Parts: sequence; C-alpha cells; structure tokens
Amino acid sequence: MANTSDRSKRTDVNTLGEFGLIDHLTSGFELRQPSSIKGVGDDGAVIDNGNMMTVVSTDMLVEGIHFDLMYSPLKHLGYKSIVVNLSDIYAMNAIPKQVTVSIALSNRFSVEALEELYDGIKRACDYYKVDLIGGDTTSSPKGLYISVTAIGQVEKDRVVYRNTAKAGDLICITGNVGAAYLGLQLLEREKQLYLSNPDIKPDLEEQDFLVGRQLKPEARKDMIDVFKKSGLQPTSMIDVSDGVASEIFHLCKQSKVGAFIEESGVPIHPDAQMMALKFQLDPITCALNGGEDYELIFTIDPKDLDKVKYLPDIYIMGEIVPASDGIKLHTKGGNIHDLSAQGWKHF
Amino acid sequence: MANTSDRSKRTDVNTLGEFGLIDHLTSGFELRQPSSIKGVGDDGAVIDNGNMMTVVSTDMLVEGIHFDLMYSPLKHLGYKSIVVNLSDIYAMNAIPKQVTVSIALSNRFSVEALEELYDGIKRACDYYKVDLIGGDTTSSPKGLYISVTAIGQVEKDRVVYRNTAKAGDLICITGNVGAAYLGLQLLEREKQLYLSNPDIKPDLEEQDFLVGRQLKPEARKDMIDVFKKSGLQPTSMIDVSDGVASEIFHLCKQSKVGAFIEESGVPIHPDAQMMALKFQLDPITCALNGGEDYELIFTIDPKDLDKVKYLPDIYIMGEIVPASDGIKLHTKGGNIHDLSAQGWKHF
Repeated sequence: MANTSDRSKRTDVNTLGEFGLIDHLTSGFELRQPSSIKGVGDDGAVIDNGNMMTVVSTDMLVEGIHFDLMYSPLKHLGYKSIVVNLSDIYAMNAIPKQVTVSIALSNRFSVEALEELYDGIKRACDYYKVDLIGGDTTSSPKGLYISVTAIGQVEKDRVVYRNTAKAGDLICITGNVGAAYLGLQLLEREKQLYLSNPDIKPDLEEQDFLVGRQLKPEARKDMIDVFKKSGLQPTSMIDVSDGVASEIFHLCKQSKVGAFIEESGVPIHPDAQMMALKFQLDPITCALNGGEDYELIFTIDPKDLDKVKYLPDIYIMGEIVPASDGIKLHTKGGNIHDLSAQGWKHF
Repeated sequence: MANTSDRSKRTDVNTLGEFGLIDHLTSGFELRQPSSIKGVGDDGAVIDNGNMMTVVSTDMLVEGIHFDLMYSPLKHLGYKSIVVNLSDIYAMNAIPKQVTVSIALSNRFSVEALEELYDGIKRACDYYKVDLIGGDTTSSPKGLYISVTAIGQVEKDRVVYRNTAKAGDLICITGNVGAAYLGLQLLEREKQLYLSNPDIKPDLEEQDFLVGRQLKPEARKDMIDVFKKSGLQPTSMIDVSDGVASEIFHLCKQSKVGAFIEESGVPIHPDAQMMALKFQLDPITCALNGGEDYELIFTIDPKDLDKVKYLPDIYIMGEIVPASDGIKLHTKGGNIHDLSAQGWKHF
C-alpha cells in the first residue's frame, strides 16, 4: 500500500516557506501555449485573448489557518473570500468579471450556515459587479475550505506586472495599512477571554474601523478607474495581502531592483496607531508586516508625479533604487536599516 | 462570538444532495456581465472573448472523500486531479489550455511527497499540452485538499452544452464504463485486508486495466479532434464523472427531454464484467452508476449517424425521447423500467 510517511528522505515544508515551496514545485513547468503570457509568480496569470488579456487569480482559504469562525461571521467570510481574489485582479490593472467558488465543508455546517456564506458571496458579487459562473461543493472530513478563482479582463497595453519597476520610480500606496492586523489582534484577545470565561461579553471597544478592515475588507476597484481616467500607467503593481514589506520584497525580487522606503510615507490610521500602542506594538511594524489590508502598492515613472500628487488616497512612500542598494527603511528617527519582511508564513 | 452551531433552524446538507445544494445556493445569482455566456449548471462555464469562447471548469478533491492515500500514489493523484478537470473542458467541445492548482496540506506531507504530486501534475500538463499558470499553496489543519481550475478555448459556433439535446437525437458514449468503480472496489477490498493484517501482501489480481481506470484515468482529448475532423457537431455533451445514469439525468433535466437507454448498448469491458460477478454485483449497475470513467456522453442528430457509425470507440446506447416518456432502461431481458441515478453522493 502507498504511504506518505514511510519515505527515507523527508524534508519539512517549513524549511522552504510558502513562496519558496511554490517556486520549488513549479520550477519545472514551462509555458508552451502561445496564449499563456504570464504564469506563476504575479498576482494573477495572464492569457492572451486577442484584443484583451484575461487575468486569472486563485486563492484557498482554510478554516483554522486563514479564518476563525469564532469571530468571523459566515456572511463576512463569504464577502472577504471574493474580495481577496478580486484584489489580485485589480493588482494587474484589470477588471474582474467572473468568479468560481469551490467549497469543502464538514457536516457540522447546516444549509442555513451555507446560505449565510453565499449571501456574503452574493453581496460581494453585486458590489463588484462580477458573476458567479461555477464551482464545486463537496464534503470535508473536518473544517471549511473555500477556493475562489477570479477572472478579469484588461486591454493588452494596460496590464501591469510585478517585474517591471525601474530604479528611479516612485513607490505609491492607495491607503493606510496595519489596521487589519490590529483588528485581528483585538478579535484574538476577545476570543481568548471568551474561551477562558464564556460569561464575559466581548469588548471590541467600538473599534469598527479596525475590526471592519479585518473582517470585511474592500478591494481598490476605484483605483483602476482612477488610473484609466487620469491616463496613469503604473510601472508595476501588487496588492497588500501578506504585508507591505513582504510585497515590496516580491516586487523588488521580480523587478531585480532595490527600494528605499520612508517611514513617514507609510500611512497609518489614527485608530491603528492608538491600538498598536495599547498592545505595546510598534505601529510601523504593524503597518509594514501586518497584511490583509488589500491596498495597492504601485510604482510610477517620476514624470507621472503630477498625475498622482493631487489624487486623494495616494501616498508616496518611497523610491525604487538599483538592486545593489538593497531594500532599506528610512525611519522617522533618521536611521536607515534593512527592511525585514516577515509577511505571513502559513507553514 | 459568532458560532455556526447555535442556530435555531438547522437543515442538514444531506437533505438537498450535492446538486440540489448547488442549485439552492446559487439560485439567487444572475449573470450580468455581457461576456458571461454560461454560468453554473454545465461541465464548464463559458465566457465570450470575441472570436473564441473561454471555458472554465473547477473541481475540489478532498482526502478521505475523493481519494485515499492508502492506495492512491501521489503521482497518480496529481495526474488524476488535472485529468478530471480537463475532461469537463472537453465535454464542452473545447481544448484546455491552462490550469491553476491550489493545494492545502497538513504538516504530515513532506516536500518529497509534494514533489511526487507535482510530478503527476506535470505529466498530465505535458501529455494534454496545458500550462500550469497559477495557484495557491497553504497549510491545512488535517488532510490534503486539491482545487484545480481548467481554462480552455473553443470557436464560438462549436461549443456544446448539456441543455440542447432534442427528442430523436441518438445518445452516444466514447468507451466502456464501470471499470473505474470496480477498480475502486478491488483497491478497497485490499485496503481492508491490509488494515486487518498488515503482513498480507495486497493482491490486485493483475487487474491493471481496472486499477488503472480508477487511479490514472485519461480524458477523451482525442474525441474533440475526431469531432472536428469528421465535421460532427454533437447536439449536447457531458462527461462521465458521477456515473452514466446520473449524467443522463443531468442532460435530460437541462434539455427538458427524456431518454431511452438500451442495456445492450452500454459498453462494459470484459475485465469489468468478470470482476462485477466476482463481487456479486450486477455489471450493468456498475456500468450505469459507477462513475469516474471520464468517457464522454454526447447526442447527435440522426442525420449525422453515418459520421459516427464507423468511428472506433463510439457506441450508440440509446435515444432522446420527449420528456413525457421519462428516462427508461430497456434491459437485455426485454423489460423496460425507470433508470435510477444513484451517482455519487458526497453528503
């Protein structure tokens, strides 16, 4: 009988990390179809369809890893599972048009629970104007697994990749970061209190902003319209799912460049600032390594500075530099040190 | 704190069945994008991309539900996970071009185990000439979950749906059925023996054909070429994943027709015939309800009979009739009774 455990050589997946593992497993695969323009390694894959490019992105959300049903209402979870995938499509400067949703669930979930989940999925589909066109529903021995694939479209000359930033480009971000992470800390704290004493009423301190950023994030659909209207073509783009620092690392690695980030240029919401201090955390660490903010980080040619300078919601947080200059953070205190990317390690 | 178990009304998902559940959950969703041609309800969804249609299909494979690593080598599992999705694309008369693969796995899996899985995925990609363009790899608290999305292309006027069969059409199938199910019975028998006494050496009775049909099925890529070369446009098509009877029910329900199936027209391999008798099972029941054969069932206009009559591998197993005539099986013994679709109930 085949068995996965009785092999002589056994390398733990932890040794490679999520991105190292994907690189390792997919390195032998080539793109041979003329229509396959971009494969593994960006927010989405790109398929040539004549006049338009089709952009495809897929994500798997796992109970106990990506979400906790103790504090994630199923409706919010359904909404978020769509949004995180749409965010990847926007990060290619494309407009999402369709999604498929596959779900594996244990018999602990009722039809009513699933209705709530699909209500959230429907609300996201309505708001972002995407169609649910397919999927799969199956049972799972334990837990809830949600796999979403989003499909979008973009004009051939407007698709934006991760690997096209150039030294001298300005690094921009579409909004504040760190709040989703602090929302999660707050929810986790109340969960622990509740588990130790179920009579305690959870106190989320009316932190609707922080909790909302965690439980019901939005993708920056509006920015893709703004880019088009203002005639701005970012030189590269990525969305903030794992954390600003981690995304900057991806962008620099793929573009073979370095980056110089100004701490003062990283936008942090006052509520996030306050909550970080309350948790005795460094606000900038939360902002750079927190993740799940679903803002867009993009780079622009400096000649396009006028096009973004007066736009609301866009912050310039640094500059692309030659790879040899490394990836550095210039702190408010005037120090310069290496940026460290913790991101989210799932393994 | 939110909780999925403390609701007043609780309907077990078993009460609806897999297809009923999908229908129920997706009934409120509309297609609003002009490019969304076909949504939930066929083998794949169809997106209009100008000259060509893009066909999308997705499937989730769950350890303990769809596969058992006691007897599924990971390489075969990787191969099969791609093939079952490509089969859905072929069932739309389309050619698959790209796949995405998302995986959730527990820490019991080593890098070497994943390499085997991806080796199988790569072999399928090579053989069927599809590109792996994306995916997600994450951890799971327990077990292995594989979610594959396949993307294909077809000329606008050649796409074939499930809901376009007409009374008078002939029902064809591309090969023998029931063998994959009997291969599974054999593997399950040996697993039980092994579990009761690990010293017993598994005896698969050199049933390479049956075991191969279960562990390493192939999709009927060749038939799509044959259809094109012979100028044959099926009037409807579906692939055999859940079982012939179940697929005939889908096709009839969607096309609003009935069917008359000749038992003598359902091809059964001699090895399957023999093994069914050995297991004291009715061969025709295995053939009609077994599933996982990944043959194609398609209907043709009777005027196209000459185009298929002399083709190898195509069997005519019945006729589409008006809905009012029901869905019947004409047995070899001369009896006519209602066809029953057990299919695979995952819930």
